[in-house]
Amino acid sequence: MSEFWQDTSIEKIGDNLWRGQVSERWNVGTVPNGGYLMAIAARTLREALHHDDPLTITGHFVDRALNGPVDLQFEQIRLGKSVSTGALRFVQDGVERARFTATFGDLDKTEGESWMLEPKPVLENPQAFLKTPRFLAIHDRVEMLFDPDKARWMKADLSGKPEHLIRYRFRDGTEPDVLSLPFFADCVPPTVFAKFGPMGWVPTLELTLHVRAKPAPGELLGRFLTRYLINGLMEEDGEIWDSEGKLVAICRQLARYRASTSFL
Amino acid sequence: MSEFWQDTSIEKIGDNLWRGQVSERWNVGTVPNGGYLMAIAARTLREALHHDDPLTITGHFVDRALNGPVDLQFEQIRLGKSVSTGALRFVQDGVERARFTATFGDLDKTEGESWMLEPKPVLENPQAFLKTPRFLAIHDRVEMLFDPDKARWMKADLSGKPEHLIRYRFRDGTEPDVLSLPFFADCVPPTVFAKFGPMGWVPTLELTLHVRAKPAPGELLGRFLTRYLINGLMEEDGEIWDSEGKLVAICRQLARYRASTSFL
Repeated sequence: MSEFWQDTSIEKIGDNLWRGQVSERWNVGTVPNGGYLMAIAARTLREALHHDDPLTITGHFVDRALNGPVDLQFEQIRLGKSVSTGALRFVQDGVERARFTATFGDLDKTEGESWMLEPKPVLENPQAFLKTPRFLAIHDRVEMLFDPDKARWMKADLSGKPEHLIRYRFRDGTEPDVLSLPFFADCVPPTVFAKFGPMGWVPTLELTLHVRAKPAPGELLGRFLTRYLINGLMEEDGEIWDSEGKLVAICRQLARYRASTSFL
Repeated sequence: MSEFWQDTSIEKIGDNLWRGQVSERWNVGTVPNGGYLMAIAARTLREALHHDDPLTITGHFVDRALNGPVDLQFEQIRLGKSVSTGALRFVQDGVERARFTATFGDLDKTEGESWMLEPKPVLENPQAFLKTPRFLAIHDRVEMLFDPDKARWMKADLSGKPEHLIRYRFRDGTEPDVLSLPFFADCVPPTVFAKFGPMGWVPTLELTLHVRAKPAPGELLGRFLTRYLINGLMEEDGEIWDSEGKLVAICRQLARYRASTSFL
């Protein structure tokens, strides 16, 4: 069975109440990855809202999540024909760790104009993309290959921008789908590592993901950029493209950059 | 008294409950502007969360808001020393019209690294910026001046990108502050008007604003861009700069573009 599907599985245990398990397999050090938590939430919200696709999902990460059981408390905001909205409390040991708020819909039924400013970035030499060392649990779940021009920080060259261009996929062969996009939106190293070096702790305060299309099988391409780091507060903007060239999601998070503390 | 401060005033009427009034003065046709609703919410959340500045605030707009009274129901998610998080239900006639979720903090006390990829856009000829016709109530509240190169749509030339560059300020002389930034994030015409003409209805599903600095007195400069319109779903990204050159906020919304229906 897919590691991702296994570790995001949920069980309905009451009215508007689900139970999940936060696995250690998606940890960054001792902390579960926030995108993984959002994926558990998205799976719950799909069931609760009766629409398949998270058009927009926002997570506010208010306290450190734990490995182990989680109670997922659902609150309906509005049920509609084309879109529905709800909130989900992510509660462990009686403490709310994160709040997710989302509008779900059905991308197969969405109709209207299409127009794009930019196509998927063309990779001049995808074979030259760099592998990272595997020192975190999460690295065993996802293979990430970095554009060497933007990943000069891996060779202690900090002359680049806070930007990544990453080819990535689940190592166990699980194909991407809309519910795994929250994970792919948050599993990459902080962009500021490219500018200030791979040290420091960059906790996410809030992450919002817009899913725009269902990903085709195959690897994803993620581009992540920080333009404004102001007094230790930064945004991290991402676009995620699928193997067929479709934009499948855009995301933005607000994070704090703490240069002085250890990454782990 | 300032129109903005008057029309966003709130009164505490119970435990975790405030009452506001949605004025007609900020209408787009018959509908109150979503950024104005978010400003009412932000003012309530400031009082409830005991921090001054909305570091990140997300609104999910689930039903059409009305002119008239609104009940603002607050739910605390986490109170902290440096940041606090809460949710706010925007309820009219017993129906929740919008849900706001926000983390507030204190920008005066925020410390850490600063680095910017891009400075405030330089305006080559600010005197040449175009005035719009005033045909909506909201136009009487805010003066918006458009970069003519990006506003070719105003002269029926649709060769441009879905992008605006706008100098704007309250007409009554009210100076911008952090609580008015939600309004400035959403008061501009839809970006797609520049690409497809100033017709159609572009309702916001979700809007997220990150406030990054307190604006100095004087006019603001807003840059708004849509890169991905896919099957009628689009993002609208904005950056807002103050008169001293500071980036004061970034924002992103998910909206539906309905070309066939009238703007009003």
